[in-house]
Amino acid sequence: MSRPPTSRDLARLAGVSQATVSRVLTNNPKVNPETRARVLQVLKEANYTPNALARAMKTGRTDTIGVFMTRVTSPFHAELLDEIGRVLSSVGLHMILWNIEHDPEESVSRVLQQRLVDGFLLTSATYDSTLHTMALESGTPTVLLHRGIDGLDCDQVVGDNWQGAYDAGRYLAEAGHTEIGLVRLEHTGNTSRDRENGFRAALDEAGVKIKARNIVTVGVPHADGHAAAQKLLSQKKPPTAIYTMTDLLAFGILDGARALGVTVPDDVWVIGYDNTDLAAWESFDLTSVAQPIHAIVETGVDLLRQRIVDPDRPTEIVTLPCPLVVRGSTANTPA
Amino acid sequence: MSRPPTSRDLARLAGVSQATVSRVLTNNPKVNPETRARVLQVLKEANYTPNALARAMKTGRTDTIGVFMTRVTSPFHAELLDEIGRVLSSVGLHMILWNIEHDPEESVSRVLQQRLVDGFLLTSATYDSTLHTMALESGTPTVLLHRGIDGLDCDQVVGDNWQGAYDAGRYLAEAGHTEIGLVRLEHTGNTSRDRENGFRAALDEAGVKIKARNIVTVGVPHADGHAAAQKLLSQKKPPTAIYTMTDLLAFGILDGARALGVTVPDDVWVIGYDNTDLAAWESFDLTSVAQPIHAIVETGVDLLRQRIVDPDRPTEIVTLPCPLVVRGSTANTPA
Repeated sequence: MSRPPTSRDLARLAGVSQATVSRVLTNNPKVNPETRARVLQVLKEANYTPNALARAMKTGRTDTIGVFMTRVTSPFHAELLDEIGRVLSSVGLHMILWNIEHDPEESVSRVLQQRLVDGFLLTSATYDSTLHTMALESGTPTVLLHRGIDGLDCDQVVGDNWQGAYDAGRYLAEAGHTEIGLVRLEHTGNTSRDRENGFRAALDEAGVKIKARNIVTVGVPHADGHAAAQKLLSQKKPPTAIYTMTDLLAFGILDGARALGVTVPDDVWVIGYDNTDLAAWESFDLTSVAQPIHAIVETGVDLLRQRIVDPDRPTEIVTLPCPLVVRGSTANTPA
Repeated sequence: MSRPPTSRDLARLAGVSQATVSRVLTNNPKVNPETRARVLQVLKEANYTPNALARAMKTGRTDTIGVFMTRVTSPFHAELLDEIGRVLSSVGLHMILWNIEHDPEESVSRVLQQRLVDGFLLTSATYDSTLHTMALESGTPTVLLHRGIDGLDCDQVVGDNWQGAYDAGRYLAEAGHTEIGLVRLEHTGNTSRDRENGFRAALDEAGVKIKARNIVTVGVPHADGHAAAQKLLSQKKPPTAIYTMTDLLAFGILDGARALGVTVPDDVWVIGYDNTDLAAWESFDLTSVAQPIHAIVETGVDLLRQRIVDPDRPTEIVTLPCPLVVRGSTANTPA
């Protein structure tokens, strides 16, 4: 066997500088995709396989991104995870997945100190979670995806939850609903807060008040949406429309209505939030505010890669539009 | 600051041998849980944080398990992933997740050579996949979970798909169905093969033949189940029961029936396989063969940890029972 190729050999073969080869090997986003492909092809033909551990010791890079997530069995989270895996893989990065329901903060804390990863994607930031604080204090590049925290000096990529919720509220008000149910989550973070406040703002503007008896505060599972629907719809004067903050809760509401023999949308309209793949299934046919999952993940991974090579760049907060997708669980096309 | 504690100091503090401290640090399964907890408590109080990379270089261990999976958006796979995360985390192991739909085999091949992980859990083994071959040839401890391969010299933990399918077939035959639809997947692995052959064996025993016009071969998505139902149920003499090989396909079948105005179970019974959480939702209320996800994952992780410390131990193949769970998509309680 001949000696292993050096980065100088590889640069010559690929017709690029040694610095470019090094940038490809360290997943620097500044390399253009064609050059990256050419260098990888040369690496492949030369059977060049850097020893990952030795290289990580030398460069301080592991080409691995830590992803924090809760409830991967929730349809929206499963889609988000799928997209994160796809995008990381497309730029040559691996994913270590921590489910923060299962991994107590103590073990996460140890991980942060161990520098197993080049950066973090946090998808479950809440006000009282210390995870984002720990991640930032560790000095590891970190991007908040999907769930943001106001005023936190950290790259964040989120959907415009306030505007999406506002559009849902305006749609119901314009269709003439005045008896409206709100199945809400506690405000553990910006997402639930904005998904409630935007909705309320639209109804306020239209002069529609949500009655206290039509507001139910729930937890995240399907069963909680189910129970809320049963409570709201068994009243003497039930709401003619129900808005909730996730598709999973909306599926529970549809199932709760079904169990009572209440027909959607004839007796009650239902609107969810996330526009998961399941929302389009006949069983649900759910009107829902769409989260731009693909754009959120693409943008977030791009910001993270930039932060890894340039830790001092200014923080960016990117907010992406969340359009209302109307289906059979509501009867009107939007104005 | 005082000097960092040595493993001798830690052993003394915990009242155990240095070898035991070392076994805890390397996640050796032979340490009993109480001792493990005590040692971890001492480590925590001493603020002992081994540098993961340095330790990995020295011990050759990363405390990280590579998990190969496809379609994390499929409800069954999401539940399997959730359980794998929970069990690995409970024994102090991290998970690198590769979605083999996104990660081409070339990159997986590089990962295998880089020794980023102590072992692999493969959840998507198919006959023509080279992944399990590559994993085994790399010498990395590997366990097949959920999907097995006949005759492969590798630890495998699977559900008893043949028997589960047989029970579903016997249940339909005993209820008097003679016009039975089969929505089948190609036999890309043992799972789909056994889920068809067990079903057919039960019908054969009962003298029930499946007519060629009642067999539809499909891909994995919900939409394929939907299309199959439309094809089967729009015949002049449609089947009175349909069995399929995953819950996801069964949900598609239920939605396809719904779109045609066909009532379940009055006009047609539907049986799925997996018994996912969604199967219990009112929208589906699906009779399904249950996969023992928890037992599969617990057993698989245990075998993997044993294989990591003892690469020469004999291969084990564990098959766990898959009971039929009867719900409203079929009308009879089983005999």
